Amino acid sequence: MFEDKKTEWLKKAEALKPRLYTETVKPVSGMPDEPLSENDCAVIDFGNHCVGHLTLRLSSTGSHPDAPAWLSVKLCENRKELNESLEGYHGWISKSWVQTEQMHIDVLPAEVTLPRRYAFRYVRIDVLGLSSKYRLVLEDASVESVTSADDRRIDPFRGEELDEKIDQTALRTLRSCMQDFFEDGPKRDRRLWMGDLRLQALTNYVTYKNFDLVKRCLYLFAGTVNEEGRIAACLFTEPRVEADDTYMFDYSLFFIPALLDYYTATGDEATKNELLPVALRQLALAEEQFDPETQLVKDSDRLGWCFVDWALPLNKQFCAQAIWIYCAKAAQKMIYDPQLEQTISARIQAAKKCLYDEESRLFVSGASRQISWASQVWAVLAGIAEGEEAAACLDAAALCPDAIGMVTPYMMHHYAEALCLIGRKKQALAVIRDYWGAMVKNGADTFWELFNPANPDESPYGSAVVNSYCHAWSCTPAWFLRSGILEENA
Amino acid sequence: MFEDKKTEWLKKAEALKPRLYTETVKPVSGMPDEPLSENDCAVIDFGNHCVGHLTLRLSSTGSHPDAPAWLSVKLCENRKELNESLEGYHGWISKSWVQTEQMHIDVLPAEVTLPRRYAFRYVRIDVLGLSSKYRLVLEDASVESVTSADDRRIDPFRGEELDEKIDQTALRTLRSCMQDFFEDGPKRDRRLWMGDLRLQALTNYVTYKNFDLVKRCLYLFAGTVNEEGRIAACLFTEPRVEADDTYMFDYSLFFIPALLDYYTATGDEATKNELLPVALRQLALAEEQFDPETQLVKDSDRLGWCFVDWALPLNKQFCAQAIWIYCAKAAQKMIYDPQLEQTISARIQAAKKCLYDEESRLFVSGASRQISWASQVWAVLAGIAEGEEAAACLDAAALCPDAIGMVTPYMMHHYAEALCLIGRKKQALAVIRDYWGAMVKNGADTFWELFNPANPDESPYGSAVVNSYCHAWSCTPAWFLRSGILEENA
Repeated sequence: MFEDKKTEWLKKAEALKPRLYTETVKPVSGMPDEPLSENDCAVIDFGNHCVGHLTLRLSSTGSHPDAPAWLSVKLCENRKELNESLEGYHGWISKSWVQTEQMHIDVLPAEVTLPRRYAFRYVRIDVLGLSSKYRLVLEDASVESVTSADDRRIDPFRGEELDEKIDQTALRTLRSCMQDFFEDGPKRDRRLWMGDLRLQALTNYVTYKNFDLVKRCLYLFAGTVNEEGRIAACLFTEPRVEADDTYMFDYSLFFIPALLDYYTATGDEATKNELLPVALRQLALAEEQFDPETQLVKDSDRLGWCFVDWALPLNKQFCAQAIWIYCAKAAQKMIYDPQLEQTISARIQAAKKCLYDEESRLFVSGASRQISWASQVWAVLAGIAEGEEAAACLDAAALCPDAIGMVTPYMMHHYAEALCLIGRKKQALAVIRDYWGAMVKNGADTFWELFNPANPDESPYGSAVVNSYCHAWSCTPAWFLRSGILEENA
Repeated sequence: MFEDKKTEWLKKAEALKPRLYTETVKPVSGMPDEPLSENDCAVIDFGNHCVGHLTLRLSSTGSHPDAPAWLSVKLCENRKELNESLEGYHGWISKSWVQTEQMHIDVLPAEVTLPRRYAFRYVRIDVLGLSSKYRLVLEDASVESVTSADDRRIDPFRGEELDEKIDQTALRTLRSCMQDFFEDGPKRDRRLWMGDLRLQALTNYVTYKNFDLVKRCLYLFAGTVNEEGRIAACLFTEPRVEADDTYMFDYSLFFIPALLDYYTATGDEATKNELLPVALRQLALAEEQFDPETQLVKDSDRLGWCFVDWALPLNKQFCAQAIWIYCAKAAQKMIYDPQLEQTISARIQAAKKCLYDEESRLFVSGASRQISWASQVWAVLAGIAEGEEAAACLDAAALCPDAIGMVTPYMMHHYAEALCLIGRKKQALAVIRDYWGAMVKNGADTFWELFNPANPDESPYGSAVVNSYCHAWSCTPAWFLRSGILEENA
């Protein structure tokens, strides 16, 4: 499907490749005062999260080097990564993401630029092997940082100190993820994911305002739909543009609000009209998940069929129902369809009738009638619950200790957005200050992929060693603080 | 000293930089039939010892790679290195010499050329990290091998099968060491050492005949003498030409026979005349090691003051005395000095009088009157022992189980040469077949730096892991087999 258009769309995406801004960043501390011997270690701090290329200028003292210098260089986003080891790591995310290199330097002095692009603030250099006849001098270190975010487009933000810090951290997060396209994380996966794109595009509209970068990403997704016309959960751009073979119910549907948000921010009628058929196709494809009898999304145990959040025990049926409604409503704003309006109503009613517990005032999910925060949040965002009922379900979740919690900043964004929607602006701000503020207090320069205030080392991957500490979906506090959504009369 | 000449000499050396011949070498076996997963390993065999640059062509099968491929690549001269580990290695030769690299490949397919020049036949690739969504395909591997040896200059050598194999192995050894200058070993130390140069130049004259490369090396040594005019034991050419701060009694003196051999091979009068003052200066400087009273070299405990062999307990006094005589005689062949002739005689007499045990017919060394093979060999080479007395001391050593043995091919070369000198040509050939032949039978493609037939894993460095398996000083069987020295009437 769309086979005749895809090549054209990918050409448009190619033509929208962004200009990359570079900047030379110097260490703020950690450059060793003394020459290094074998087994010595240095930890250099570049002062803030950087994405780019590291260059070391090395020389020697003592006799002429009579053997190579053998170094390990580890590049870390977060200080705690510095001492983490891969020993015993058997998680399902590849350990190849850990940013560690080894190198032999045959001739000194030397200026060595490491072979890859890295995301880091800290650099740990271990001297694995050196001759006893000389010592290694680290003369200089620098980063050629790279981003497609234009700092000059940022308006000053004034507020309470913590809010300013949260805003700065959010901006840095988005900036580091803005590269040749909107990456989910510059350490990992360095990939265009729909779930991340939607939120970083939103934040971009009120910060770096690189509208063309969003347009490029929408065309990339449209240009890589499969033979059914389905939007992939994520895609690669190297060695050529190609969709990943992962498809998720919610991520395909989120193409619709992502297109609406772009149209709302830019008024770009032509792009909206060109990509609208792709957006509507996602609604059509989602039909296969519905039971025509009940108008409910079929319950599924298949891991990852619908993302919602990284809470592994989460039953996704209710959220999928709500996300479909949320996305169908977005489609209606671009092109109204009376028949779709009836289906939306029917599915809202079905959810209220079959997936609502009158007594507890909570929405439930799946055959086990699982209670989760995510279900209440999406009930509100989709307008399944409105007014007093919406407030009631969120309040009821707070009183239900067994409710499946929220584990990602991505889910916390939706929670804060739901609070705004029901007018609880102060509470939304408190959530941002408590949750993202706690990362700031934990030393974050950029917002993390995962954060559980009760257990900062938590990871769904088996070990924090592969966690990403600069992740696009965590950048939305800048949107909350700058879009006006937190204002009482918004 | 020679300060006004050194710059000129280094310019001459620079102008003599050799042409490098390259050749593409393909694996003979070990290319994996199946794609590789995490923790898989492949061992590629390039069929012979190569010096050069390794290129791997990699692709993937399965899903689009969603994480980098993290590889360890180990390059080994000898098959037994493949499974050796650096775990627990604390020897005094830097472990940075072990040819092992790690790399992350972000984008597949990729053609990756490793960053350095390596010496190897075998390449072991370990997949340290990979995603479970794809497998790695090793499409191709190739070596761009490099040498300044011109294979077209080699005359065919015909003889018994073992002799032919020994000759081939010796040629390969020399070829791999012939680079921008005569390296001691292309794995380690990749440096110009006088002890190696003298023997590889000798072999070169009857094989690759790259006379300019010897000339270049003589000028490099002359151009880097210290303020006293002393020839260094070795020198570096990168990042600029510089002598090492290691000086050894024998290695400085060997500049003299090296110059004589060059003159004999080429008849290059101009070079001989220009460098003769440097040669004679080494004799003058050696005077500081003599006791003018006894005309004997002073005994010394300082490790490495005179090399001779890697036998650590070896007392060097006698050998140093003999090597001085050997080198002074070489000087006499270039410019005769009657006064030097008297000194030579006096020192031969002093050795015979003070460092000879009449009863056992063995030469002894040091205050402890240590008995070693090395002393007998150098007594013969220097002409301290001649005729029947020379044969007697070598025979006596064979009957003395406590005599300090010979541990390097370098020392074995001098033993075989001593046998030739006393007319024992068959025995010399037997030594070559036994000693170098045993390396061939142990799978050598090139001759090793160190070889003890009784303990092939022996190393003076604390572990065989840093041993060099292609070492210049071991290449001389081709000289023995091709120079005619083994012929009865030679």
